[in-house]
Amino acid sequence: MQALKPTEFTARVVWLGRVADRAARLEAEALAEADMTFAGIAGEAHGGVTRPSCSRVMDQHPRGTEIRNVRQLSVLSAEELVAVAGEMEVDALYPAWLGASLVIEGIPDFSHVPPSSRLQAPSGATLVIDMENRPCQLPARVIEGHRPGCGKLFKRAAEGRRGVTAWVEREGRIALGDVLRLHVPDQPVWSQLARARA
Amino acid sequence: MQALKPTEFTARVVWLGRVADRAARLEAEALAEADMTFAGIAGEAHGGVTRPSCSRVMDQHPRGTEIRNVRQLSVLSAEELVAVAGEMEVDALYPAWLGASLVIEGIPDFSHVPPSSRLQAPSGATLVIDMENRPCQLPARVIEGHRPGCGKLFKRAAEGRRGVTAWVEREGRIALGDVLRLHVPDQPVWSQLARARA
Repeated sequence: MQALKPTEFTARVVWLGRVADRAARLEAEALAEADMTFAGIAGEAHGGVTRPSCSRVMDQHPRGTEIRNVRQLSVLSAEELVAVAGEMEVDALYPAWLGASLVIEGIPDFSHVPPSSRLQAPSGATLVIDMENRPCQLPARVIEGHRPGCGKLFKRAAEGRRGVTAWVEREGRIALGDVLRLHVPDQPVWSQLARARA
Repeated sequence: MQALKPTEFTARVVWLGRVADRAARLEAEALAEADMTFAGIAGEAHGGVTRPSCSRVMDQHPRGTEIRNVRQLSVLSAEELVAVAGEMEVDALYPAWLGASLVIEGIPDFSHVPPSSRLQAPSGATLVIDMENRPCQLPARVIEGHRPGCGKLFKRAAEGRRGVTAWVEREGRIALGDVLRLHVPDQPVWSQLARARA
């Protein structure tokens, strides 16, 4: 009867990173392990229990409104990164270029896992997936710097494969190689969904 | 391109309440308005930015683990309450008996709105819906006290109609009569969902 249900889906952590200062440098530095706190990864520019709202939620809040931070972490799929790089015809897309917090492998169609799903690490650290992330133009500039001519290809190639945003529900450490388990809301799809989106 | 999308679905607030002391009394007291803070409704026993985990998340956390509180509010649908009462063959099910925070009317199949949806009030106060709530036995005792012989009928009758749990993303006041707008994650249903639930 529990509403949140463990699944057989697991994913291995293949990259961990942190953006220390967004203004200075969009790229993330790689980490071997990271302490997940209720404010996100310690020392991460996207951290905080709350944040000033940005352009992504202009349909909900005037820019700069204090809202809870559900974008503490950017979680990407290794498989989707490869597919995006393939479509862009570049040799590789490094997670650091995209400002990633976590890259995992093993969950199919990862960018579309159900909103409010959880990823749990062996330490007990638990991340709540808010929802799909959407490609923006910022990584395009970084990619353009590394692979001239390719930056503009990113946004379109990454549609539906840009990973998810997440926040920390339970504190703990996550390390490279950790296996995370996916837990999903065990409920029927809303029958009015199609109409709601019309 | 925003991932969180306003819908045409709105709901009117028809009841507001607060449980002051869970140990003393499960029933909620009615309010004319409530200030939503990042810790939930001020003075509400289910409030707090974090909470000790309970039996509902034993598949994820040992009991008593400090986790973020995604159960600050219990949001019920007026239409579903009527349907549950009908199935139980009682005259009415009062929101206070169920320890409700908010009862709204106007959204069909409300208990199954997509997890991570938002409800936004005219003040800007915004609630994040974690997911469907599941009926437990506690309200059954309260109902039994008011309608002897009927308490045991609640759990089954309320399946799929027990509303949702929610938490505060943006602070502000919500009052009786307010019209809340539903915003939903604008993303495809996860293609692996059926398999994940198997």
